[in-house]
Amino acid sequence: MSGRLIGVGVGPGDPELLTLKAARTLAEADVVAHFAKAGNVSNARRIVAQHLRPGVEELPLLYPVTTETPKSEASYRNSIRDFYDTSAAAVARYLDAGCAVAVLSEGDPLFYGSYMHLHVRLAPRYRAEVVAGITAMSGCWSLAGAPIAQGDDVFVVLPATLSEAELERRLLDADAAVLMKLGRHLEKVRRVLGRTGRLSRAIYVERGTTADSVTMRLDDKRDDVAPYFSVILVPGWETRA
Amino acid sequence: MSGRLIGVGVGPGDPELLTLKAARTLAEADVVAHFAKAGNVSNARRIVAQHLRPGVEELPLLYPVTTETPKSEASYRNSIRDFYDTSAAAVARYLDAGCAVAVLSEGDPLFYGSYMHLHVRLAPRYRAEVVAGITAMSGCWSLAGAPIAQGDDVFVVLPATLSEAELERRLLDADAAVLMKLGRHLEKVRRVLGRTGRLSRAIYVERGTTADSVTMRLDDKRDDVAPYFSVILVPGWETRA
Repeated sequence: MSGRLIGVGVGPGDPELLTLKAARTLAEADVVAHFAKAGNVSNARRIVAQHLRPGVEELPLLYPVTTETPKSEASYRNSIRDFYDTSAAAVARYLDAGCAVAVLSEGDPLFYGSYMHLHVRLAPRYRAEVVAGITAMSGCWSLAGAPIAQGDDVFVVLPATLSEAELERRLLDADAAVLMKLGRHLEKVRRVLGRTGRLSRAIYVERGTTADSVTMRLDDKRDDVAPYFSVILVPGWETRA
Repeated sequence: MSGRLIGVGVGPGDPELLTLKAARTLAEADVVAHFAKAGNVSNARRIVAQHLRPGVEELPLLYPVTTETPKSEASYRNSIRDFYDTSAAAVARYLDAGCAVAVLSEGDPLFYGSYMHLHVRLAPRYRAEVVAGITAMSGCWSLAGAPIAQGDDVFVVLPATLSEAELERRLLDADAAVLMKLGRHLEKVRRVLGRTGRLSRAIYVERGTTADSVTMRLDDKRDDVAPYFSVILVPGWETRA
């Protein structure tokens, strides 16, 4: 009898933003797998700590250290691919033994999450299901109380890694936007928001929904220091009805 | 002492996709408000029925009947604006009496939801908070097991009400997309997906995560009949790592 793979979205950070289905899934799972950087505790695991059965089998999946390798290089891509291959094999051993394996995913598993790399490798061969989670961006605009999109708005998610010209073109072409992966790109993003007339409505959110979250108008943020997982919201809302 | 407004996301349909925070909020609320068409039961209320306190005060907010008025007409816009003004006033009476009023919202309250129209009217004057919910689109791609976006993908939400030329331009400009508000636009959307080379990876989802949901490759759907709230997913995923 073969097991069951479940990608479990744990939401943006607030442990109460877990779904009832995720809580039940974790209470029933034989094995709980979670991604983390080597030497770090998995953030997803921290979010759900109180929902893990005492003594449940855990499978940490530790990202290889790649900080000194540019992402564009083949060696980086190979290293990441090998990591997901190895991780999938480790999960598969439990599935072959008939276990229900829950793989934790911050936010939503299939929206810019690591879980999807296991899903595409294992779902063709095993029973697999996905428990949707609250995305980081939903958590951020809810925390900020900022209506993000309405009616027939076009809404876009833009990685801040895009070039300045690309960001400008795409911001001008959308009603509402979320910029993610800010990190060292904040200065560039701020320039583009200014040039496109969107700076005054841009909202900066850091560690959204966690106990030490920061929310402010980007205009009020004095420096351009931002963690990788901070976001900028550009609400499409104007009072139309 | 004035009350508290809480926009509560109830998720895409599966009652288990409610968050722990939403369940607690509903258990504590003095009043639960919900939108519905006149003569219909609120879908959001149906999703959370088991979490309402017996005998809790309910405030149904009934959309005006506007089916015979084109949306572009001023009379339609006036009618909708009046409806939100009246609804906000009805909620405000409870807030003035010191009540905690939970306003149900399918999906996520600030992402294409009706709640935001109350929020912008009331949040400047009352304590207001928002409990994020699982969006319909997250529910749909999780149900379909379809990784929607990864890495540096540009992800876009497109209302199917856009013109054929606009849809084509925007689909070609994005890595991943969700098309919503299909209704009578499905034939047009199918044509555009074919022309842009995206038909083979397009997934059609109807009533996602509910007991009678339908998920299929759009290619396999023989007719162009779609309810207003069905969606089409165009995953950005290719096996890259």
